[in-house]
Amino acid sequence: MPSPRNALAIVLAAGEGTRMKSDTPKVLHQVAGRSMLAHVLAAVAEAEVGTVAIVMGPGRDDVRVEALRLTPGARTFVQSERLGTAHAVLAAREAIAAGYDDLLVLFADTPLVSGGTIRALREALAQGAGVAALGFIAADPFGYGRLLQDASGRLVAIREEKDASETERAVKLCNAGLMALDGKSALDWLGRIGNANAKGEYYLTDVVEMARAAGREARVVLADESEVLGVNDRIQLAQAEAVAQSRLRRAAMAAGVTMIAPETVFLCADTVFGRDVLLEPNVVIGPGVTIGDKTVIHAFSHLEGAKVGADAAIGPFARLRPGAALAEAAKVGNFVEIKNANVAKGAKVNHLTYIGDADIGANANIGAGTITCNYDGFFKYRTVIGENAFIGSNSALVAPVTVGAGAYVGSGSVVTKDVTADALAVARGRQMEKAGWAANFRSVQTDKKAKK
Amino acid sequence: MPSPRNALAIVLAAGEGTRMKSDTPKVLHQVAGRSMLAHVLAAVAEAEVGTVAIVMGPGRDDVRVEALRLTPGARTFVQSERLGTAHAVLAAREAIAAGYDDLLVLFADTPLVSGGTIRALREALAQGAGVAALGFIAADPFGYGRLLQDASGRLVAIREEKDASETERAVKLCNAGLMALDGKSALDWLGRIGNANAKGEYYLTDVVEMARAAGREARVVLADESEVLGVNDRIQLAQAEAVAQSRLRRAAMAAGVTMIAPETVFLCADTVFGRDVLLEPNVVIGPGVTIGDKTVIHAFSHLEGAKVGADAAIGPFARLRPGAALAEAAKVGNFVEIKNANVAKGAKVNHLTYIGDADIGANANIGAGTITCNYDGFFKYRTVIGENAFIGSNSALVAPVTVGAGAYVGSGSVVTKDVTADALAVARGRQMEKAGWAANFRSVQTDKKAKK
Amino acid sequence: MPSPRNALAIVLAAGEGTRMKSDTPKVLHQVAGRSMLAHVLAAVAEAEVGTVAIVMGPGRDDVRVEALRLTPGARTFVQSERLGTAHAVLAAREAIAAGYDDLLVLFADTPLVSGGTIRALREALAQGAGVAALGFIAADPFGYGRLLQDASGRLVAIREEKDASETERAVKLCNAGLMALDGKSALDWLGRIGNANAKGEYYLTDVVEMARAAGREARVVLADESEVLGVNDRIQLAQAEAVAQSRLRRAAMAAGVTMIAPETVFLCADTVFGRDVLLEPNVVIGPGVTIGDKTVIHAFSHLEGAKVGADAAIGPFARLRPGAALAEAAKVGNFVEIKNANVAKGAKVNHLTYIGDADIGANANIGAGTITCNYDGFFKYRTVIGENAFIGSNSALVAPVTVGAGAYVGSGSVVTKDVTADALAVARGRQMEKAGWAANFRSVQTDKKAKK
Repeated sequence: MPSPRNALAIVLAAGEGTRMKSDTPKVLHQVAGRSMLAHVLAAVAEAEVGTVAIVMGPGRDDVRVEALRLTPGARTFVQSERLGTAHAVLAAREAIAAGYDDLLVLFADTPLVSGGTIRALREALAQGAGVAALGFIAADPFGYGRLLQDASGRLVAIREEKDASETERAVKLCNAGLMALDGKSALDWLGRIGNANAKGEYYLTDVVEMARAAGREARVVLADESEVLGVNDRIQLAQAEAVAQSRLRRAAMAAGVTMIAPETVFLCADTVFGRDVLLEPNVVIGPGVTIGDKTVIHAFSHLEGAKVGADAAIGPFARLRPGAALAEAAKVGNFVEIKNANVAKGAKVNHLTYIGDADIGANANIGAGTITCNYDGFFKYRTVIGENAFIGSNSALVAPVTVGAGAYVGSGSVVTKDVTADALAVARGRQMEKAGWAANFRSVQTDKKAKK
Repeated sequence: MPSPRNALAIVLAAGEGTRMKSDTPKVLHQVAGRSMLAHVLAAVAEAEVGTVAIVMGPGRDDVRVEALRLTPGARTFVQSERLGTAHAVLAAREAIAAGYDDLLVLFADTPLVSGGTIRALREALAQGAGVAALGFIAADPFGYGRLLQDASGRLVAIREEKDASETERAVKLCNAGLMALDGKSALDWLGRIGNANAKGEYYLTDVVEMARAAGREARVVLADESEVLGVNDRIQLAQAEAVAQSRLRRAAMAAGVTMIAPETVFLCADTVFGRDVLLEPNVVIGPGVTIGDKTVIHAFSHLEGAKVGADAAIGPFARLRPGAALAEAAKVGNFVEIKNANVAKGAKVNHLTYIGDADIGANANIGAGTITCNYDGFFKYRTVIGENAFIGSNSALVAPVTVGAGAYVGSGSVVTKDVTADALAVARGRQMEKAGWAANFRSVQTDKKAKK
Repeated sequence: MPSPRNALAIVLAAGEGTRMKSDTPKVLHQVAGRSMLAHVLAAVAEAEVGTVAIVMGPGRDDVRVEALRLTPGARTFVQSERLGTAHAVLAAREAIAAGYDDLLVLFADTPLVSGGTIRALREALAQGAGVAALGFIAADPFGYGRLLQDASGRLVAIREEKDASETERAVKLCNAGLMALDGKSALDWLGRIGNANAKGEYYLTDVVEMARAAGREARVVLADESEVLGVNDRIQLAQAEAVAQSRLRRAAMAAGVTMIAPETVFLCADTVFGRDVLLEPNVVIGPGVTIGDKTVIHAFSHLEGAKVGADAAIGPFARLRPGAALAEAAKVGNFVEIKNANVAKGAKVNHLTYIGDADIGANANIGAGTITCNYDGFFKYRTVIGENAFIGSNSALVAPVTVGAGAYVGSGSVVTKDVTADALAVARGRQMEKAGWAANFRSVQTDKKAKK
């Protein structure tokens, strides 16, 4: 049931990310196969926040495009100067002014925050708090702002490391940055925040003081440290990836997937598994993959945008590319690439093969070294192989071409014309032999080599 | 020297394993390439326990088959109802009644127990104890039964978490479940265990009390926590796998194998290595693999059921399947699959090749892209390549076929007839050229593309 | 600016390394793609130590060759008997006698020591110390010698574990073994060291006492424990590798390389990356690799001795071997091997291909399954493919051969003669069909199978 309160999430995405040393804006760097911004927007959607505003740096059309791709109704705002977090939030002043019940401030470089945590922040507002700040118990609090509470646990202030007394520094409860504000009062409070500090910036954390001055309660909502990991460089990006992967693996195992070595399996946020799937070590799964019940993915397999049915076997050393659709009990073996192709029930593509832009019928057997020649340098063409067809090893099928049901293609053939159902097609040279040639060649070459 | 005492091991394998969310019974899930049940049976055999009884759930023929495959003389019993561990042990009443010296109770879902630990339990009986319980110091004892000892270290009772006093909960010595009982008294003691408890179950742990009541000493035998890890879900299965792999890797390194990144190498319990073997990162070894001295396995290689001689080089990206037998100094390179084939001394199969059902002679050179066409959709046939033969690249050898010693096959040939020793065989089309064709094609296709 | 003080580094490389269980001398075992000896010599060079002496075991020409390869002017000395570390240092007596300002004693089996640490040892001498010993705070000091300091931090003695009092054993500051000595006094002090101890050996650690007796200060220079890890068996070798890899990965990420799963990426000490390079999981990079800006290395790729330009895409499942030189925007896809070949700007080699000893022109397209047949069993020959050429799938190019610019090779061709620019070359068999053959074959084989 959606919350009866309406809500606006402001996602701050304007950070320059200079420590990333990248031409890509920080929030578009990816974790578990999607951008950090996308992770935050997914959590916002999961928490049923109706309206989303993105605050970007100037000239970041790429961020705007990504935001709108994921949340078509999102409003985007530009923060032209960097004058602190409160200033960044106020870039979305026009959205805030509509007076939502809940105003959430999130950070696009804190990608692991869950929908549940955003709900918990909203719940604090629903229970009457004017401000709810997300906190975490830091293993090493050095450098973080501390959340200072009174005896009954109410949030009194957020103190920066450098302004903290020794006693305050001993506090391990730290500020994650994420915050929920009473949306009807937010504009008033934010407007009162000043910049009389060393850096001359407007700090969002000062809103706690404003809310308390207005007689409203400020609360702490707790999260695990791993959930509020902020990403400022590529080392932290890798740490966020590790946390995300660990979560995805545990969820998959809990649901009935065996991973022999989970730490060597890489998933995406959208990977879908059936029950009793077995993953050997070293499997990399990109976006858009679904794998059916009891399917085995052998070691060293790479899947992206592929649908695999039940009881199938993939790999080792298999690559399924976007548009690969494998039916029940299909088999794709080693050094095989499948792209934009349907492989019907029980069909086998076991060794050293490229299948691109093709339809392979049920129980067809594609021999080792088969290549579908789908490209002429300009256009792509389709290969159709009927059910129960047998393609001899090392054959080339020059598309557009159809091999009829039950037909047989001789090994080493180059098939350029359609093959009739149940027929044999052979297209190869004739074998000739020159007796003694090799013995002679060896002696000539051995001599040459000796002279070199 | 075998123990002069005889022994019966009862392996409890009836757990349903619902948290595995699997159609496979829990004890048949694998660790390091063999079932958890197989691990326990191997430890039992290592401890020279003469008689084995397996207690299974009803209708578990698959468990019976696995048990008998591994321990042909094992007796199997069915526990029809689940009324606790003592009840499960008594399912094997008929076996116990024979009155062995030592009665061992083991769990098929505690797969990492070693033969040495089982011996230690037996040793406690040999020294006069009536009961010996396996204990471990738990990093986090919460949820485990505690082993309560008297001042001189004798086991007084096994206390479940929920029945423990605060002082007892502070005890870190926990119950691993595994136990050894005086086999001549066991039936009597087990028979006295009641079910007057909250769950109405018969608990094996109560046997401590029975033995003490009969004036017999109860002892604790210590194991490392990692050895007594019980598997109830796939996350714990992965943890057991990690412990097993870590043990296998350390043993291999200690014996003279270099692993650049041991955490990326996966072994089986039966893997055999020579000295000075080098494994690059990312090597997966399945059951039945032997690797000779000084052989190098390059990264991204996958071996199963393969014997590799000394001074050989495998991979990167090589796959050796069951029946691959490589002699000394053989070389199998990238994107090569070898199945049910002998590769003689010094032979080279370096690139993009499928060798199945074949014999390759000494010092033969198999060119890139060679395929043995061993299957006609119904039967498999053999390819024989003589010593010093040279198979030109991109050739298909249509089995059954023999290429004589020292013969030479021209590149791109489809060899369907035997090739005489020292001869040259060529079987390919003739090269024709159409001048200017490509320039014209390009202009036509470019136009078409422009119109699309 | 080079130090105004001159220096001699004595690298002790005579350890037998029996616990390695190897025929290779311990110091030639590799970490991050180069020998442990090479790592130490690189650190020595980085610290601008002008003269290097290597002390080897007898008959170790392989060690001498490696030392001279890396440090051509190095002097090598043989320690014939193993009578302790001071005795080993004195094997280089002739070099020491020249009276350098700084005498450094290093160990070839302590490969992770940095140039900065060697500089710090030298700095201690420059500041007046007679001896500087490298120390570290041990997580578990058991087994290490302890560095005993007086109240003002001066080094008083190095005490072996077995000779230490209880108080001394509580000291966590341990001896890493590496040392710097006043080079003008060293010979005198070393000469005074006796062997009146249990093992009858001459211990270098006694030099502290000699220096102090001569009124000179002894100091401690601190290093991190991971930097002074000594390698005595393959498990420690793997630990050293892990430390080295971790350092290399962090440095790459800090400089702007994204690694989705850094723990699965293996680098060499000499790997060079551009900015915004993206590495997917499971990439193994051997020696001599350079990768340009914005290039993506997909999962399961293996590179050695390869130069890759900017904006290129490699893998998944690609192997670049020594001499592979890829220009800007080149693309090498799955199951492709490139060896000793130039791939010009924008050229594509996407699937199941072997390119060896070849030049591929700009924007050429190499079809799936193409093989350059570069070897005749005796010599290697070159394949040249012009710009914009299109090689149809499953073709074999029999070198020496040239395909002209803009030419087109039909799929499945075996090209043995040069192809004119802009022409079409086809070299394959003609397609023939036998109607109903497959249906008949199936029925015959099915009958046979039934009878088997």
